Amino acid sequence: MRLRVAFAVLLALMSSTSWAADLPAAFTNDARILFQGDSITHGGRGLNQADHNHIIGHSYVFLIAGRFGADHPEQNLTFINRGISGETVPRLEKRWQADTLDLKPDLLSVLIGVNDNAVNVPLEQYEQTYDRLLTDAKTANPKLKLVLGEPFTLESRKPADPAVWQKWKDGVDQRREVVASLAKKHGAALVKYQPMFDKACERAPAAYWIWDGVHPTYAGNQLMADEWLRTVRDFWKN
Amino acid sequence: MRLRVAFAVLLALMSSTSWAADLPAAFTNDARILFQGDSITHGGRGLNQADHNHIIGHSYVFLIAGRFGADHPEQNLTFINRGISGETVPRLEKRWQADTLDLKPDLLSVLIGVNDNAVNVPLEQYEQTYDRLLTDAKTANPKLKLVLGEPFTLESRKPADPAVWQKWKDGVDQRREVVASLAKKHGAALVKYQPMFDKACERAPAAYWIWDGVHPTYAGNQLMADEWLRTVRDFWKN
Repeated sequence: MRLRVAFAVLLALMSSTSWAADLPAAFTNDARILFQGDSITHGGRGLNQADHNHIIGHSYVFLIAGRFGADHPEQNLTFINRGISGETVPRLEKRWQADTLDLKPDLLSVLIGVNDNAVNVPLEQYEQTYDRLLTDAKTANPKLKLVLGEPFTLESRKPADPAVWQKWKDGVDQRREVVASLAKKHGAALVKYQPMFDKACERAPAAYWIWDGVHPTYAGNQLMADEWLRTVRDFWKN
Repeated sequence: MRLRVAFAVLLALMSSTSWAADLPAAFTNDARILFQGDSITHGGRGLNQADHNHIIGHSYVFLIAGRFGADHPEQNLTFINRGISGETVPRLEKRWQADTLDLKPDLLSVLIGVNDNAVNVPLEQYEQTYDRLLTDAKTANPKLKLVLGEPFTLESRKPADPAVWQKWKDGVDQRREVVASLAKKHGAALVKYQPMFDKACERAPAAYWIWDGVHPTYAGNQLMADEWLRTVRDFWKN
């Protein structure tokens, strides 16, 4: 009987107001959680760090920061966004010290590759430079938790030239393979955004999730936040 | 026994990956959900509507739009942000036709008052103009669902002059009373942000939620989204 009551209470809780979330084990006390990447991560954030109004941007980073910042203030988590629009791995390398190592993250999440694909950074350079950045980050903090996001794309509109689209898509797939291999090498959690977005297209058209082939909508950003969290929970079960 | 299994499954679900949310009854099929207000709503969104990257901003609006856009694509909901930084009620009146009525919302959420308090828009003018805007919106769509947010403030830092702070705080409280009275008059749901933020200060210092007395942090924006949702669920039980 008491079980029945508890069951009813649980059901009421689940169908009620909150969309609160349990703390992932990876979000330890006082953790500094840093997101690096390109425009997808950037999300229009202001670059003036003194202006706290625009410090986090409107990407999946804000969705994660807001949820866990609100639900677990006692953890004293700090979420930091350092995504920059248009960023490639070679460009990221130039600010790696100031914008990653100097910020002393406990968890570092990186999502980069679509611009490297767009401007044809050679695949080998992409891999070697990215590899070096991750090695440097782990050298600076051997206990660093690493999260790597797969580059992704969707055919949001019928392409003008299918051959151009296919070349672009193949290029993104190649970068994905590199990222998967780097994740394995560095013991990083790998967020598989591409199959997630592919699957979402069974629920709504591609443009509902990614409006221009590259940049997620508000709904697409939430999918990213959810998949990021799912991956982090799975990886660091503790 | 089957109940025990279901109970275990429910517990597992609750403590697992998702922070998905049930659809509020107010979010009907194809609903257009419009947020109006000042910088708190604006959240750094771009003003170029063709640029979908920056269309929603990084305020509580994005948190609501992302969550329900991702979880319920089949509902075909449209979330629109028309908050403008620095906005007062007299300024809002000038763009009410283009930025509210012409957008034909099914649900209209308004949060405005702190700038009126800062620049001393007389309380009577604030009330009468605000009242007229709401009347016009309901005339344009008699089935309109209205949500009004209380203006709010927190003492994020020890004030240089306590008397100045007290005058500011008293002014915000007066605007809150006006909004509560307008909500009652127009059959609107009233989101009580002030007591929510006051209560949150038992969990973390004021500056954790509102960094400068007026503008919420990412954690504060999530509190707002949660309270907004709780209020909307309670009001439109259907």
